[in-house]
Amino acid sequence: MGDKLDTKQILEAVERREMTAKEALLALRQEPFSDIGYANVDHHRAVRQGVPEVVYGAGKPKEQIGGIVSSMLAHGERMILVTHLAPDAAAFLETEVVPEGTPFRYLTDARLCTIGVLPEPDGIGTVVVATAGTSDIPVAEEAAVTLEALGNRVKRLYDVGVSSPQVLLRHLPDIMNATVIVAIAGMEGALACILAGYADCPVIAVPTSVGYGASFGGLAALLSMLTSCSCGVSVVNIDNGFGAGYQASMINHVRK
Amino acid sequence: MGDKLDTKQILEAVERREMTAKEALLALRQEPFSDIGYANVDHHRAVRQGVPEVVYGAGKPKEQIGGIVSSMLAHGERMILVTHLAPDAAAFLETEVVPEGTPFRYLTDARLCTIGVLPEPDGIGTVVVATAGTSDIPVAEEAAVTLEALGNRVKRLYDVGVSSPQVLLRHLPDIMNATVIVAIAGMEGALACILAGYADCPVIAVPTSVGYGASFGGLAALLSMLTSCSCGVSVVNIDNGFGAGYQASMINHVRK
Amino acid sequence: MGDKLDTKQILEAVERREMTAKEALLALRQEPFSDIGYANVDHHRAVRQGVPEVVYGAGKPKEQIGGIVSSMLAHGERMILVTHLAPDAAAFLETEVVPEGTPFRYLTDARLCTIGVLPEPDGIGTVVVATAGTSDIPVAEEAAVTLEALGNRVKRLYDVGVSSPQVLLRHLPDIMNATVIVAIAGMEGALACILAGYADCPVIAVPTSVGYGASFGGLAALLSMLTSCSCGVSVVNIDNGFGAGYQASMINHVRK
Amino acid sequence: MGDKLDTKQILEAVERREMTAKEALLALRQEPFSDIGYANVDHHRAVRQGVPEVVYGAGKPKEQIGGIVSSMLAHGERMILVTHLAPDAAAFLETEVVPEGTPFRYLTDARLCTIGVLPEPDGIGTVVVATAGTSDIPVAEEAAVTLEALGNRVKRLYDVGVSSPQVLLRHLPDIMNATVIVAIAGMEGALACILAGYADCPVIAVPTSVGYGASFGGLAALLSMLTSCSCGVSVVNIDNGFGAGYQASMINHVRK
Amino acid sequence: MGDKLDTKQILEAVERREMTAKEALLALRQEPFSDIGYANVDHHRAVRQGVPEVVYGAGKPKEQIGGIVSSMLAHGERMILVTHLAPDAAAFLETEVVPEGTPFRYLTDARLCTIGVLPEPDGIGTVVVATAGTSDIPVAEEAAVTLEALGNRVKRLYDVGVSSPQVLLRHLPDIMNATVIVAIAGMEGALACILAGYADCPVIAVPTSVGYGASFGGLAALLSMLTSCSCGVSVVNIDNGFGAGYQASMINHVRK
Amino acid sequence: MGDKLDTKQILEAVERREMTAKEALLALRQEPFSDIGYANVDHHRAVRQGVPEVVYGAGKPKEQIGGIVSSMLAHGERMILVTHLAPDAAAFLETEVVPEGTPFRYLTDARLCTIGVLPEPDGIGTVVVATAGTSDIPVAEEAAVTLEALGNRVKRLYDVGVSSPQVLLRHLPDIMNATVIVAIAGMEGALACILAGYADCPVIAVPTSVGYGASFGGLAALLSMLTSCSCGVSVVNIDNGFGAGYQASMINHVRK
Amino acid sequence: MGDKLDTKQILEAVERREMTAKEALLALRQEPFSDIGYANVDHHRAVRQGVPEVVYGAGKPKEQIGGIVSSMLAHGERMILVTHLAPDAAAFLETEVVPEGTPFRYLTDARLCTIGVLPEPDGIGTVVVATAGTSDIPVAEEAAVTLEALGNRVKRLYDVGVSSPQVLLRHLPDIMNATVIVAIAGMEGALACILAGYADCPVIAVPTSVGYGASFGGLAALLSMLTSCSCGVSVVNIDNGFGAGYQASMINHVRK
Amino acid sequence: MGDKLDTKQILEAVERREMTAKEALLALRQEPFSDIGYANVDHHRAVRQGVPEVVYGAGKPKEQIGGIVSSMLAHGERMILVTHLAPDAAAFLETEVVPEGTPFRYLTDARLCTIGVLPEPDGIGTVVVATAGTSDIPVAEEAAVTLEALGNRVKRLYDVGVSSPQVLLRHLPDIMNATVIVAIAGMEGALACILAGYADCPVIAVPTSVGYGASFGGLAALLSMLTSCSCGVSVVNIDNGFGAGYQASMINHVRK
Repeated sequence: MGDKLDTKQILEAVERREMTAKEALLALRQEPFSDIGYANVDHHRAVRQGVPEVVYGAGKPKEQIGGIVSSMLAHGERMILVTHLAPDAAAFLETEVVPEGTPFRYLTDARLCTIGVLPEPDGIGTVVVATAGTSDIPVAEEAAVTLEALGNRVKRLYDVGVSSPQVLLRHLPDIMNATVIVAIAGMEGALACILAGYADCPVIAVPTSVGYGASFGGLAALLSMLTSCSCGVSVVNIDNGFGAGYQASMINHVRK
Repeated sequence: MGDKLDTKQILEAVERREMTAKEALLALRQEPFSDIGYANVDHHRAVRQGVPEVVYGAGKPKEQIGGIVSSMLAHGERMILVTHLAPDAAAFLETEVVPEGTPFRYLTDARLCTIGVLPEPDGIGTVVVATAGTSDIPVAEEAAVTLEALGNRVKRLYDVGVSSPQVLLRHLPDIMNATVIVAIAGMEGALACILAGYADCPVIAVPTSVGYGASFGGLAALLSMLTSCSCGVSVVNIDNGFGAGYQASMINHVRK
Repeated sequence: MGDKLDTKQILEAVERREMTAKEALLALRQEPFSDIGYANVDHHRAVRQGVPEVVYGAGKPKEQIGGIVSSMLAHGERMILVTHLAPDAAAFLETEVVPEGTPFRYLTDARLCTIGVLPEPDGIGTVVVATAGTSDIPVAEEAAVTLEALGNRVKRLYDVGVSSPQVLLRHLPDIMNATVIVAIAGMEGALACILAGYADCPVIAVPTSVGYGASFGGLAALLSMLTSCSCGVSVVNIDNGFGAGYQASMINHVRK
Repeated sequence: MGDKLDTKQILEAVERREMTAKEALLALRQEPFSDIGYANVDHHRAVRQGVPEVVYGAGKPKEQIGGIVSSMLAHGERMILVTHLAPDAAAFLETEVVPEGTPFRYLTDARLCTIGVLPEPDGIGTVVVATAGTSDIPVAEEAAVTLEALGNRVKRLYDVGVSSPQVLLRHLPDIMNATVIVAIAGMEGALACILAGYADCPVIAVPTSVGYGASFGGLAALLSMLTSCSCGVSVVNIDNGFGAGYQASMINHVRK
Repeated sequence: MGDKLDTKQILEAVERREMTAKEALLALRQEPFSDIGYANVDHHRAVRQGVPEVVYGAGKPKEQIGGIVSSMLAHGERMILVTHLAPDAAAFLETEVVPEGTPFRYLTDARLCTIGVLPEPDGIGTVVVATAGTSDIPVAEEAAVTLEALGNRVKRLYDVGVSSPQVLLRHLPDIMNATVIVAIAGMEGALACILAGYADCPVIAVPTSVGYGASFGGLAALLSMLTSCSCGVSVVNIDNGFGAGYQASMINHVRK
Repeated sequence: MGDKLDTKQILEAVERREMTAKEALLALRQEPFSDIGYANVDHHRAVRQGVPEVVYGAGKPKEQIGGIVSSMLAHGERMILVTHLAPDAAAFLETEVVPEGTPFRYLTDARLCTIGVLPEPDGIGTVVVATAGTSDIPVAEEAAVTLEALGNRVKRLYDVGVSSPQVLLRHLPDIMNATVIVAIAGMEGALACILAGYADCPVIAVPTSVGYGASFGGLAALLSMLTSCSCGVSVVNIDNGFGAGYQASMINHVRK
Repeated sequence: MGDKLDTKQILEAVERREMTAKEALLALRQEPFSDIGYANVDHHRAVRQGVPEVVYGAGKPKEQIGGIVSSMLAHGERMILVTHLAPDAAAFLETEVVPEGTPFRYLTDARLCTIGVLPEPDGIGTVVVATAGTSDIPVAEEAAVTLEALGNRVKRLYDVGVSSPQVLLRHLPDIMNATVIVAIAGMEGALACILAGYADCPVIAVPTSVGYGASFGGLAALLSMLTSCSCGVSVVNIDNGFGAGYQASMINHVRK
Repeated sequence: MGDKLDTKQILEAVERREMTAKEALLALRQEPFSDIGYANVDHHRAVRQGVPEVVYGAGKPKEQIGGIVSSMLAHGERMILVTHLAPDAAAFLETEVVPEGTPFRYLTDARLCTIGVLPEPDGIGTVVVATAGTSDIPVAEEAAVTLEALGNRVKRLYDVGVSSPQVLLRHLPDIMNATVIVAIAGMEGALACILAGYADCPVIAVPTSVGYGASFGGLAALLSMLTSCSCGVSVVNIDNGFGAGYQASMINHVRK
């Protein structure tokens, strides 16, 4: 992007009154877009928000996803995440799009794909990713791999759900030492509430669609987590492991 | 009821093949009804189901409730419960209907009224009535007083909710020794799930309408309790302390 | 588990003030966990809660379920229940995991598997499992077999729904003699309400997803059962035959 | 309405091919409307549909209701029903609008007002109006008085709900002899289902908003009645005693 | 059924005070049940309710349905309706169960099967079955064939929905002459409301699951029909053509 | 606003390539904001969007509303609409804020206030505002007065609901001649569907919260209108007469 | 249609008082219907409403759709739209029904088919069709092609969603110059709200079912769009690209 | 708390392997509870979680709240927050409970009370609290004052909602410089989505119950925020300004 200013520099200039907000907006709006016909690929965004590029794969033909990824690789992105990616589209990316030598990983259950080299962890501390049961693991892996792709150290605590309280107690030191916790649970979703009772760090809760009957596709866990009586819990969409990992990474990198 | 057979005797006769089911049904259908115009007062029911008489007070004019109670007292009921009773109807009962000397008690918050002498506890063990917060106490008292009126020893554990896990741990011996537990909670309702994780007795869960926003009047707690991943939990209607106490008493008196 | 104390002994020591709650908790937290990588298998739980071990099969790969079952059998479990088990995973368990000579049974419709010898009934009385229609039978069998695996005598009353009241009347003696009733119905779910009107024992109601249109996947039956005007009804999740059987067994074994 | 043809005559002419449908439509569209500014009063409708005139009182200022009623009385209506009428509007009608000597009746709980002389019953048979509890009586009276105003013989069976099955059995002869049954119940609404099991006539079910918690303002009863497994049940809106009475009257007057 | 009294005779005896209600109940409860293991076949019901026998086919194995049908044919039923019948079960009935010479008809879209001879129409008048669109026709045929099997003359008015008001106007004479109308519509369900505005007979409304998006599987049409501002509309479950036909037949046979 | 360019001029300059989009954005962002502490008053907006200024009154203290209105009057606004305005705040505006001589009108039922002179109608044609019943009139007046304040000729057709089809037919010429129709109805909301069947202009549908029971506060009408099978219907929020009037005015002024 | 008057002429005659409304209605009701057995084909409607003929393809057998299309072609329709058309039915139309030489186009994703020659744009201005993401494009194409078939100039702005605000800003001139905007978005649906903030023309919002979890099949976007705080937004059914295009075309042709 | 170890020290000892997790748990469970009869006051919690003490005031009698606050003050709490506090209870606290000289502040609209001295800001950066409209300000003040009581520097941006995009653009520098953003909006809740598009820090979204109709008490905003397509958004309960402020403070103090 040549000698252009990046977002941070622009904003600092605004803060120092060396630039007006209007000038900043103009500067921000200049050239970072590639037009590839069916999608606006915003190459500036990785710079502007300090994160790898993310492609939402659901509903896009595989050729289109391939085109977006190619354009990103051509612009020098070192880490690309593709979420909600169907297996056949993943196979297409691996064989037709990603150049040999570029690391490629696809989690079938999580439908998540990483393209590129995992960065060194540079976050403030460790992010705990915990699940209530084994059925929640695909969502958890979506969160954990997202976190790793964004430069975080991750501690996985799977199957620590509330019906066996002793299991949870064994992991208290990990829980109490975390910088952020991602709590993933279906059914009644009590895990988020319980972890927040022990921990004194932010808890990002992910309701899952695991369950049946009155789970109503994750609604029970969602409402339960939203009304959780413990302080310090916030919630993302049902099964949204990626979104929870993304925000947990932001928290683990605050002002660093 | 003179020399008529009571329900138990009738059924035993059926079991011994001394009476057919048809004869039993006829016997059961004979005289236990008083007709007082606006309500069928079923004096046989206390006998048939072995419990004090219960009047559902909501939506009935106070004169009507008074008439029902009078008719019951005249038939020799020793303990009458009136649920969902408005304060002015309670005052009316106390001053106009219940004879001097008959014990009368009214719980304003629980809107529950007991008329008559509390029986001696004759259940199998102790019933724990636990709440997550202080705001759940009116529903808990409805359950607890119902239990006492039905002949149960009750242990109240109030405000032991999950945001302070240490509080709950202190009460583990009571929880693990209970014959039945009534778990009362609003918001995310996790208390039922957690108690069932520690206890090995039936847990009757009561969602309450305590909360706001995504509690949706108790819906969040209701769904959470229904999908609770711990075994041994069943659920009654939102705020239905009476129903939970009633069933807990049945369990505490099984085959006794 | 050698010369360690079991749960009952520990709690009795607490009651006799020979042990503090803290010491008890420590004692309870010691060694009952096998770590098999993907799941915490809690071998203590059968002891602590006095029941066969239960594995929730939904969402777990068959190899993982096999590993859990193997670990349990190696620890000497005499009866294992696997719920929500897919047919191919059941075939895998039968042919690859369970040793010859160990009784193995799989109910295809109920997706329930029992491994081991059915115990002698040792409950207080008989548990009635009743359905409104023939379509509710898979859920009913899940409840009934769970009850048998937990040591209960079971009386099945299937297809006694309310549209043919005479059918129900024929079974009055069974209904009135039960220790607990599990009432299973879809559509409008009125069976629970009606049985509770005749019986004087606890009724555990199971709404089923049988039906269409305004059944909304069991919601109509669920709400109907929760608001049932008869006393003594509590409710479990839609289609949760296992949970109802489990709690009914607890009630049928109260303090025995 | 002078020497104009009424609706029946017009249609008979169409049937006899003495008039085309087009001519009929023209004839129907001619003069039966009074324009009183804020409402189109359709004096033809009583004639066209063979029923007294009905005014929906909710949301209209009392002066406006008074104007409509005056216009109707001036056109010779012999029986006017005003539904959802607030008490102060009723008082206004009685004192300011209805001429002395014209019978006037207002049911405060049902918020229903009848103005004029009750007709002689001229229906096919007797309509049973049954309620589950005493709290459903205001809705039942709305149905019963509507039926009487429309010329039906009514048998009221109140408080025959399912928790006391014996009470219901006592009334079997009335139930089995009815031409139509209006079944009114809140909470779980099982009454409609049960009555339809015994009766062989149409059952019009009215869910009521009686109840709390999971009743969700009548939703539980509504869904329960819609999914009722017995044949011959149809349902009207929550608390709509008038609509049920109106349709029951139509059925009781079929082709008469 | 030999020299036993049928239901009508019994009830008339009750009315003439020649028999008490208790005796009547006993008489009614005697022998009409065949026990065929998996289902209580109530052969009395056709007699008691004056209608052909109806089997709800959903969720039953085809062999079980075949057994029920066989038992009914053996008891001399002349017309059997099987609803919600899967195509393969229909083929099984036709080839394996129903004797040659017995008329057999299966409506694939409506999943409805009639076995036996259609009776002569003996109702009061004509029943109109109307649909808003062509997509609603399978539900309409379920209603229409049910009506024919129950002895009604049926007039089909399909695709007369509200977006082409002229189409509807053409059929006004049929609509205004009907004894009962079954109004079938998905999407916004306005057809019921509009027909009731023109007709002066009862309208039974059937919401269908035709539609998408905010139709929410028929919920939009259901709520619309329940709140329909026209008098004389009642509603059955979504897609329940059978239930609507059944009740419409009852109305068309009132006291005949 | 002195010699600054207004929005139209700016955009025309952009079209003529005399100005870049960036320059335009800067021009647009310059000075039109008054900062009065608790609210950003956007005086430019009236210019930018060509409409009178609108203040949403709900939830704002009356002093705050007064401050906003004063600031607007000081900037020379000739017509101000205040929606959702409580009566006491209206009285405050009239007596304390609006200068003598400035026209002031407050519709109590619609809670709508207009301040200033109604403009001459300058729209393309006539906008019909129709309601199903008299109870919908407050919402209709909110739409109609909004339309008049925005320079439209309005034809009011109130109480033309579907239960009296003849009433509607009388107004066919008005309906078929309209440029836009605002169709306002509660309960089942069929009016929108029916008007769109006759008209060939856009219909803006407004569901109202008029009704009870299964109306669920306007949900029934909302879903019905959204799924309306007639073409050319779009929907605004429940009771949002203002929003419908606002969009109808935009349509009536397209490219004028 | 020979020398018959078309709708416009009739209405003008009404306006000039040369014809009464009654005469007009008669004129309108005369002959435009072909009866082809399973559907009323209303050939007059294209004339009456000034638009191509539209066939709703869902739920109709392909032969039936073919019959309708054939009848329309035989009546000289120059442009036919078939919506919700399955691919095999489209193939059937193309190969078996549409005569060689007649233009035929089928959009697989949008399930929309156009038969005939696209008309020249004759609308007032340009209609913008905008989507938030690439997954919304099938719905957008349904809207855009509908608009083109109805004679509108269309500007497509795809993938301009709110997570990349700079992308949206680039298109401000198109947005501010539009005559109507169709805003299509799933998930949280904020696009409609944002476009309406910039534009001063009507915005027709289309929620899509794109998304998962708390999207609840488009419900989140639907509610968001309905409550959109910007003025000038109205909403059509979820995924209803056709309906939005149809109304946008009406607006773009107002009184032209 | 004398020479006891505080939570941090205990956990560090665990990390250094100087203490086992079991010993730590015991240490944590020792003395921090005051038993004041109706509530377990957990004085340890402030220490354990590093925050002022919080009392949930809803549903508790004022005397009870007073007792809890007194107990806390007696234990030396320097800052107490009471949420959901009714005005009369606030007056009671101020006049009867809080000693003279102790700062006391009550926000009537937010129903939030702070008792004690505001700490110096010690967070990582500045927390932006933004609202869409003026009606959201009470919830925003609950968040902002909570943040200040927890030691954060707060920048309030009120009334920057999306209908006036220029207003928002003016505040870009504040938005892009924030450490955390709390985005508060009712109606369609688009503000959270839009802010997350500009910012690169975590956004905590608070849906509010501001709005009417399809807002359904905040449900529209809740679903919209949960499905927000921008990354980095998580959500708390409707109107839960306190919870959002609490978590934002945690984020702003990560590992500090």
